[in-house]
Amino acid sequence: MTVESRLAALEERLRALEDEREITRLILSYGPLVDSGCSADVAALWEPGGVYDVDEILMTGQAEIDAMVRSSNHQRWIAGGCAHFVGPPHVTVDGDEATAVGYTLMIVNRDGFTLRRATANHWHLRRTGGGWRAVTRTNRVLDGREESPDLLASQFPGATRHR
Amino acid sequence: MTVESRLAALEERLRALEDEREITRLILSYGPLVDSGCSADVAALWEPGGVYDVDEILMTGQAEIDAMVRSSNHQRWIAGGCAHFVGPPHVTVDGDEATAVGYTLMIVNRDGFTLRRATANHWHLRRTGGGWRAVTRTNRVLDGREESPDLLASQFPGATRHR
Amino acid sequence: MTVESRLAALEERLRALEDEREITRLILSYGPLVDSGCSADVAALWEPGGVYDVDEILMTGQAEIDAMVRSSNHQRWIAGGCAHFVGPPHVTVDGDEATAVGYTLMIVNRDGFTLRRATANHWHLRRTGGGWRAVTRTNRVLDGREESPDLLASQFPGATRHR
Repeated sequence: MTVESRLAALEERLRALEDEREITRLILSYGPLVDSGCSADVAALWEPGGVYDVDEILMTGQAEIDAMVRSSNHQRWIAGGCAHFVGPPHVTVDGDEATAVGYTLMIVNRDGFTLRRATANHWHLRRTGGGWRAVTRTNRVLDGREESPDLLASQFPGATRHR
Repeated sequence: MTVESRLAALEERLRALEDEREITRLILSYGPLVDSGCSADVAALWEPGGVYDVDEILMTGQAEIDAMVRSSNHQRWIAGGCAHFVGPPHVTVDGDEATAVGYTLMIVNRDGFTLRRATANHWHLRRTGGGWRAVTRTNRVLDGREESPDLLASQFPGATRHR
Repeated sequence: MTVESRLAALEERLRALEDEREITRLILSYGPLVDSGCSADVAALWEPGGVYDVDEILMTGQAEIDAMVRSSNHQRWIAGGCAHFVGPPHVTVDGDEATAVGYTLMIVNRDGFTLRRATANHWHLRRTGGGWRAVTRTNRVLDGREESPDLLASQFPGATRHR
């Protein structure tokens, strides 16, 4: 191999690691930002028209995500004590698009710490001029509904659910 | 340093990061695959003759791991709602062998979400023609049995348990 | 770009990834080391004069951190079954200094596994001759006290808490 081709290969491999690192970091910033009520900063993890699709609520666009964090409901979680414990995501990058799958535990302080919810998370992200941003994040609670394991499996093309 | 030696050093350092990334990704795919019942895909994380050693059950070879995921027992967990929440692993690569240590929480939906088990996990992995694969994964529940902290400490050569 | 400048850029970008990787690995070793009572190895994650500031106790210097792990209190947690489940950290490196933010769950085995505490963690780290070390780690339990969300938000300069 020539020096030129070795440099080009290194640059491409490094870029792949940097993309995954940036996406992972974006996902890991969700918990600390939402648990401290940094509403605009949470919303800025998405594209302006990004979608946050949770079981009981569908938010479209940064303004609706921002409003959810500012809502008295969410502020009460923070005031009482709350952890959105985000697990390490499994990320797959394909050019300027990426997907990630992971879990979130919602833990609240109420007569001691209680595990309120365990949720499957699926992210679709896009490279923008300002870095990676979420296009759609889909959360489905792991309470037995079929959508939740389907969401987890969707990250692995070719994987087959036994039924 | 010559251009040649700088290129060689970069290639080696990058390879080290890529190895850790691939192993971490393999470990992080366990949760989503097992919680969606993708039995063959779970089994394929191991070498054909790989071992999955859990407190109450020893599985040897991909067929036994596949069968565990297809079992009515495991399928009932999925049907009721279940999260194998895998924590971020601490990975150490040594040439074509690697070890990793981490934790798994098994969370089940039963009268609300319940933490059924917190477990120490130790992985021994090997580089194969098809990428990294698990050789042996050992799980020990953190209920006070001595094997569990021993397993955690085994990742850190030279570390000494105070007793 | 010349070969020289491309090599220099690659070396710098790779170094940035390696720094984050080393810091993440240090943070992820805390759980396995503390849950197995490797007291000196836990203490060695800090600089000699490093500070571990937990809500109910302030430890200054490696000897005090070591003593906490050797204490009968901590040894009882291990004997009964205990997991310090450390979530994936969000790391920011700035030259030879770094910060990280994340969560820890303390899970104890007592009439089944119980979530004793969910805690916000903030790390300040420094590059030393022997690699990265913790300078100060600050833990604040997420029970509604204002310090805890403040600690989470402090990792994101410019982020603004809605109140």
